[in-house]
Amino acid sequence: MKPYVLGIDIGGTNTVFGIVDARGAVIASGSIKTRKHNNVEDYIDELHQEAQKLIEANDATDKVHGIGIGAPNANYFTGNIDECVNLPWPAPIPLAQMVSERFGIPVAITNDANAAAIGEMTYGAARGIKDFIMITLGTGVGSGIVINGQLVYGHDGFAGELGHMIVKRNNGRLCGCGRTGCLEAYCSATGVARTAREFLEVRNEPSLLRNIPVEDITSKDVYDAAIAGDKIAKDIFEFTGKILGESMADMTVFSSPSAFILFGGLAKSGELLLKPLREALDRNMLSLYKGKVKVLLSELKEADAAVLGASALGWEAKPYPATAAPVGVAPAASAAPQV
Amino acid sequence: MKPYVLGIDIGGTNTVFGIVDARGAVIASGSIKTRKHNNVEDYIDELHQEAQKLIEANDATDKVHGIGIGAPNANYFTGNIDECVNLPWPAPIPLAQMVSERFGIPVAITNDANAAAIGEMTYGAARGIKDFIMITLGTGVGSGIVINGQLVYGHDGFAGELGHMIVKRNNGRLCGCGRTGCLEAYCSATGVARTAREFLEVRNEPSLLRNIPVEDITSKDVYDAAIAGDKIAKDIFEFTGKILGESMADMTVFSSPSAFILFGGLAKSGELLLKPLREALDRNMLSLYKGKVKVLLSELKEADAAVLGASALGWEAKPYPATAAPVGVAPAASAAPQV
Repeated sequence: MKPYVLGIDIGGTNTVFGIVDARGAVIASGSIKTRKHNNVEDYIDELHQEAQKLIEANDATDKVHGIGIGAPNANYFTGNIDECVNLPWPAPIPLAQMVSERFGIPVAITNDANAAAIGEMTYGAARGIKDFIMITLGTGVGSGIVINGQLVYGHDGFAGELGHMIVKRNNGRLCGCGRTGCLEAYCSATGVARTAREFLEVRNEPSLLRNIPVEDITSKDVYDAAIAGDKIAKDIFEFTGKILGESMADMTVFSSPSAFILFGGLAKSGELLLKPLREALDRNMLSLYKGKVKVLLSELKEADAAVLGASALGWEAKPYPATAAPVGVAPAASAAPQV
Repeated sequence: MKPYVLGIDIGGTNTVFGIVDARGAVIASGSIKTRKHNNVEDYIDELHQEAQKLIEANDATDKVHGIGIGAPNANYFTGNIDECVNLPWPAPIPLAQMVSERFGIPVAITNDANAAAIGEMTYGAARGIKDFIMITLGTGVGSGIVINGQLVYGHDGFAGELGHMIVKRNNGRLCGCGRTGCLEAYCSATGVARTAREFLEVRNEPSLLRNIPVEDITSKDVYDAAIAGDKIAKDIFEFTGKILGESMADMTVFSSPSAFILFGGLAKSGELLLKPLREALDRNMLSLYKGKVKVLLSELKEADAAVLGASALGWEAKPYPATAAPVGVAPAASAAPQV
């Protein structure tokens, strides 16, 4: 088997890519601006040019087994991006086919949270764990669910939208999805900032957060204030951790995972978030599962994680079905190599 | 492959068993009282005697491929019943091993709702559906989740307790599990009866249900009253269907099933339950899934369903690992035969 995969993480602002080996070492990486091109063909041309330079500079020509791509709303089954919420091009985009044809290499795509779960299973905290749920706490709340060693895609490729479980049935916060009361509206970085604004408005105590214009407060500001001992800021983490822990107890009755793995900016808040989370998880857990479910933090470096997660999918990329395999490209094997 | 399986459904009152062929026809069936014996060995002796009579009378000696058992809290992985809530014997019971040794036939066990899901997939409404969630609406609310054609057992064999998702976070009803606000406390047959008592106490309108002593009201009484046009009874079904539909929207974000399959007494309430259920499901569905998820009713006859569900597991029964395969018993194949 060829020794490398190319991982590509397509974000709303930057597209980061890297050459990764079977042990999960990022050999080299680069990036381009996602929004520079008004049409997706030009974007893929630039991506191809820059990635090829990286491949040649690292003596990896003809050594790339497959390409894995993580992108918002990317569908593993169809190879398409079906909705472009944060991307500047009209949907649907047959991304896997386009990239595969441009590079002459098999491509597999999935959404960012699923890519993170696959990365964690291949290279990170979930190595050897067959049943776990990855929760990504970023601007939104994403998830990737692994059951019996396999990522759950659902009948249409869109399973694992746990950020859109309803955690507050009545008078819940408006969510970006158009509904109200979603987990994401409370436990994402933006959810934490919203909680800060609510708490500051309702409560009268002094707080370090009152030194910041209320619309500018970020979850990082709340973290800094909590670390400095600010009571309101600490209560915001209590509130956030409690909701997340309660939700995780509900997720447990579905797939009975042996672990949850948390990833993303908020996960780095450490015990500020984890203590109330674990307490709520334990208090709300059906007795059948009590004491069985670990809460772990991602072991992938944040800078590398998106590319690593995407790259892991490259090991299982198969030549895109709608196109003949380009000459000289061997069909991909079905699993990551044993390292 | 041998042409029959033996399905055994162990309920709190009766144990029903039947000889089933590969097309899901119940060739013959029988039953014994579950609670007649104070020790489980005597119970298994009687079960063996009665089942053997049935097997011999139907010329099925040496033609039974495997035995599948559905029982409360039965664990597919360990072969044990780990908790005996409704059974008269002390737990844990190494049921698969005991039955396998007594019959000299491979045995597989799982809980009743999982057995129902496997039965539906093998013989019923879920034939050809790879991603679905079975909801059993009986005394409690049970569930069996199938993802990519495989039943979800979780890391410990206890996945799929969707009756214990919390649907009312604050001031919820006490559930048999000791927590409050579980789906089961609202959408089971007993939940419907509780709703009736609540509605009759809070509301003043006349109702046919007021003719029944309030503690004696069953979900069947509520159904009969609703069919007779009783407003409160119809509102009880509205209330129940709405909660179930809302919960099913949350279940959808987990595994993106293409169908839910409803089974059990309440499922037979038809549009009284299904209309508000579908409305709530649609109203609460994340847009990604809207219009994609069917709500189906079980296609297994209620009288046969438990035995059929359990029997389907018999096709995948393997000789119990802790014991050598009895002489003359071929190892089981890993899948149901193609019919």
